[in-house]
Amino acid sequence: MIPEDTHLLIGSLMFEGMDQIDLTGPFEVLSRVPNSTYRIYAKTNSPVRDLNGLRLIADATLAEAPPLDVLHLPGGPGQEALMEDPEVITWIQRQAAGARRIFSVCTGALLCGAAGLLKGRRATTHWSSLHLLAFFGAIPVNERVVMDANYVFAAGVTAGIDGALRLAVELRGDEVAQAIQLDMVYAPEPPFNSGTPERAPPAIFECARQSYREITARREETARRIAARLGIFVAQ
Amino acid sequence: MIPEDTHLLIGSLMFEGMDQIDLTGPFEVLSRVPNSTYRIYAKTNSPVRDLNGLRLIADATLAEAPPLDVLHLPGGPGQEALMEDPEVITWIQRQAAGARRIFSVCTGALLCGAAGLLKGRRATTHWSSLHLLAFFGAIPVNERVVMDANYVFAAGVTAGIDGALRLAVELRGDEVAQAIQLDMVYAPEPPFNSGTPERAPPAIFECARQSYREITARREETARRIAARLGIFVAQ
Repeated sequence: MIPEDTHLLIGSLMFEGMDQIDLTGPFEVLSRVPNSTYRIYAKTNSPVRDLNGLRLIADATLAEAPPLDVLHLPGGPGQEALMEDPEVITWIQRQAAGARRIFSVCTGALLCGAAGLLKGRRATTHWSSLHLLAFFGAIPVNERVVMDANYVFAAGVTAGIDGALRLAVELRGDEVAQAIQLDMVYAPEPPFNSGTPERAPPAIFECARQSYREITARREETARRIAARLGIFVAQ
Repeated sequence: MIPEDTHLLIGSLMFEGMDQIDLTGPFEVLSRVPNSTYRIYAKTNSPVRDLNGLRLIADATLAEAPPLDVLHLPGGPGQEALMEDPEVITWIQRQAAGARRIFSVCTGALLCGAAGLLKGRRATTHWSSLHLLAFFGAIPVNERVVMDANYVFAAGVTAGIDGALRLAVELRGDEVAQAIQLDMVYAPEPPFNSGTPERAPPAIFECARQSYREITARREETARRIAARLGIFVAQ
């Protein structure tokens, strides 16, 4: 827990082709953290579209971002294009070096990997990419939220809400997180037990697995290439 | 369930001062409905800010919206300013008259009320406004998702995710909704049992109740005035 009179600068990376709820879920939680400022940063001031077309606008560019206390990295298919983008990777490295907490959601963890931040860490990401964490020297953990030192990793998509609440505990303690949870009326009632590969009906999981095959193959190629360049041990 | 070869036009109202996850939660679900187009409509093409500052842009103006199959109305403090805005209320009335489903989240239900759509309906909204539904002739129900004829009402904030999944079942059946739930990795693990007034620690609930007092009083005044104008019976 960080002293409550310490003002916290919280910042998210926003990018074209992110999965919007990787950002908007944590925003809903972390924008309610007392004594903090939450800003969103992107390569440009132009609107970006999420993978399904939602248009959002950042508050400022990456270059304009102050040193952040909390760095939040969403995921989504657009992460792929950023993994070898020196402007973005350098920004993540610089921010992560000074941040009190680094928080990735979904394939945002692969951005941490490309920035060389995962070596030896327990981490998680979307189930379709979990095996890719090993390319970056991480220990993949099949849990919804994984915490390691000052890192918080949330698995796929809506796991960002749970990860952000866990992060809120780290920042401001249990009572603040409970108040935020009430404010968000977060007492979920999913209509099915279908939210993970292990629980979904097998035919539905198989269909999802197929639909991820192409992007997973692309992500694997990228991971392999970057890992080789970073000189990280690659299992196999 | 609607025949799967029927293309569905899904549309959300977006407005200044909404609670962004009332929109982005359902967007995450409903933008994945097969054979559908999801667009967001607002009074203007300019960016709007949600209550905590997130900036989003609509796809088109209200006037440009085609007749929608699914009308989605988010809530948040900004709903208050729209309840007596003839452009918005007329738009809701016209769209609701032709829509297959009308779906409100949080205080989006009060917009339905101001449009005269709640008479005799079982409905729900954010807990702080639940008693206001009676002003509009509705039967308030303290449940997370309430369905009545072709209406789906989700209670506060994140309840929109659960409501949207229930709506996805109505639109395309169980298997599609299960696939969407898996795609969103929606297997929530809230860190506390603090998401409703009944479950939150009493001191935390009391604090939240106090923080809502002012806006609830304002909403009550508006509800009373509109109900009188609409000639709806007002229980005490």
